[in-house]
Amino acid sequence: MKHNFGAGPCILPKEVFQEASQAVLDFDNTGLSILEISHRSKEFEAVVIETERLVRELLNVPHGYSVLFLQGGASQQFAMVPMNILPEGAKAAYLDTGVWASKAAKEAKKVGQVEVVASSSDRNYCYVPKGYEIPSDAAYFHFTSNNTIYGTEVFETPKASIPIVVDMSSDILSRNINVADYDLIYAGAQKNMGPAGVTLVIIKDDLFGKSGRTLPTIFGYEAHAKAGSMYNTPPVFSIYVSMLNLRWLKAKGGIAVIEQENIVKARTLYDEIERNPYFRGTADVADRSRMNVTFVMDTPELEAEFLALAKERNLIGIKGHRSVGGFRASIYNALSIGSINALVDAMQEFEEGKK
Amino acid sequence: MKHNFGAGPCILPKEVFQEASQAVLDFDNTGLSILEISHRSKEFEAVVIETERLVRELLNVPHGYSVLFLQGGASQQFAMVPMNILPEGAKAAYLDTGVWASKAAKEAKKVGQVEVVASSSDRNYCYVPKGYEIPSDAAYFHFTSNNTIYGTEVFETPKASIPIVVDMSSDILSRNINVADYDLIYAGAQKNMGPAGVTLVIIKDDLFGKSGRTLPTIFGYEAHAKAGSMYNTPPVFSIYVSMLNLRWLKAKGGIAVIEQENIVKARTLYDEIERNPYFRGTADVADRSRMNVTFVMDTPELEAEFLALAKERNLIGIKGHRSVGGFRASIYNALSIGSINALVDAMQEFEEGKK
Repeated sequence: MKHNFGAGPCILPKEVFQEASQAVLDFDNTGLSILEISHRSKEFEAVVIETERLVRELLNVPHGYSVLFLQGGASQQFAMVPMNILPEGAKAAYLDTGVWASKAAKEAKKVGQVEVVASSSDRNYCYVPKGYEIPSDAAYFHFTSNNTIYGTEVFETPKASIPIVVDMSSDILSRNINVADYDLIYAGAQKNMGPAGVTLVIIKDDLFGKSGRTLPTIFGYEAHAKAGSMYNTPPVFSIYVSMLNLRWLKAKGGIAVIEQENIVKARTLYDEIERNPYFRGTADVADRSRMNVTFVMDTPELEAEFLALAKERNLIGIKGHRSVGGFRASIYNALSIGSINALVDAMQEFEEGKK
Repeated sequence: MKHNFGAGPCILPKEVFQEASQAVLDFDNTGLSILEISHRSKEFEAVVIETERLVRELLNVPHGYSVLFLQGGASQQFAMVPMNILPEGAKAAYLDTGVWASKAAKEAKKVGQVEVVASSSDRNYCYVPKGYEIPSDAAYFHFTSNNTIYGTEVFETPKASIPIVVDMSSDILSRNINVADYDLIYAGAQKNMGPAGVTLVIIKDDLFGKSGRTLPTIFGYEAHAKAGSMYNTPPVFSIYVSMLNLRWLKAKGGIAVIEQENIVKARTLYDEIERNPYFRGTADVADRSRMNVTFVMDTPELEAEFLALAKERNLIGIKGHRSVGGFRASIYNALSIGSINALVDAMQEFEEGKK
């Protein structure tokens, strides 16, 4: 068995793969593949409705928010957010906590003015800035709740008098959030929601048309909301697999249960990193991510050796991103504590071998 | 066995479903699902490279064109085309041959000026306008090569001194085309290329940045071309299944072979429509589509009766679009002549039953 620590697209539950595989041959006893059914069929309409219902239920989405399934990932949201809610001449406020946060700001600058309120680039994004001011005259404030590359996470939602927009691509559905704290949440599905190819957007309806700009219909959130995410042909299979995965999460007990598991998984791994003299965490302790655990060696020459051992032990995808180096273990919802233990075992085996 | 005449997402070859189903469990003997592998893994990079190579080979794409796999379907191309190649103050020329052609023009109007050079709306789009003039001062000319709803197809590429853009969503890879006749070809995959969730764009490189507009990076073709369709996380599974389908097409003998089959399939069905006194084709004979065969009854009261018989005979998806009524048989590449014969048999059975 392989332990998939990849950063995304990433591990999903085995049961989901099995059901999805079956549906590619025969979807819901229709005698047709999920890949050949019409998106307008009553069978697929039921899938979209259930997927939306599960998102609403699991995240406890309040009244007055739309739940959309779009395409183009977070990268397309970097553009759609300002196009939809940044009026001509107005400015937006961005928090810079890494490559993706910075890209979001850079793309927004192609649409309007951007003020970066704080940045942790001074220490290679190993922490989350605090104590910054959010300008009350900005159209909105944007931040990234989990920084996949650097292994930091924002657990406390910034308070502001202006709309708050968050890119939750890599930690949505991994912990309890209060949706009402945000005005717009977006997330590429390919971490905890489903496979690549679909993007979740949860938007407060009063943001529709807020920028006053004339946009092609497909780039406005409202058309998608009105059409129940069927304005154009949706990514049928990616939505279907997301539904299977959300069903799995619900059957497990929902966010409260998965959050406890994620806390235990992260603690187990961080504890070993702290204990083991060969490894060292890269993120400040207070801001350590529960989804992406980044760590290096004090003796970088040994890193290749540990990677080789990891490979032998079927630990996949733990090479760190080039911006941080070392290792990154992405420990999303579907990764079991058993896989964490397998990694910890390998770290201890490595230590033993050096004695 | 079901005969899937759905308009799209639509039938793909059984072999493709089988291989795709297997890859959801174990992709390419990696021990991982195609749904959990990194898009940056060497295994998936090989998939993107092969998919592009197959498109280039099957369509004989000349040097100087980029082949891109994007998201958002033709609907997103309705916006991206003018954003990329319609300069501020310039106008674009559009041919109106149906709902989708008309939507393309409508969306372009949100970006710049549009001149509709001709329309067949006067006769509910049952023909393709001819003899119109394409203004040489327009930035480009746009048309739709196959009109899924109305069952018409443009077999002769319009000649113009300006760039030609074509929406080939529903007939790409079904017949021989000369790519050099076009400057930009786009197609939602979900007819003859693959499942929903990926969009094919074939663009002449000298169109990059042609509009001179400042665009969010993700909406410019050039960034996708430079990144080999990996500017952002691509729709992994939809590209993978497209590759399987293109392999199938190549193994069959490529476009020349499938085009002959499609000609025979269409002729067989149109012949029966002409022969059978209960049915009547809706499109002008010269412009009849080989992909979507639209027909009605002279006695509309009998249509429900034929639909019931079709259902009994496992003929799926033949109800016509509400704009035309009656029936529509979509007979894409993967639909066998056996399925055409099953439909013809049902039509004859219906006729017999009335004697």
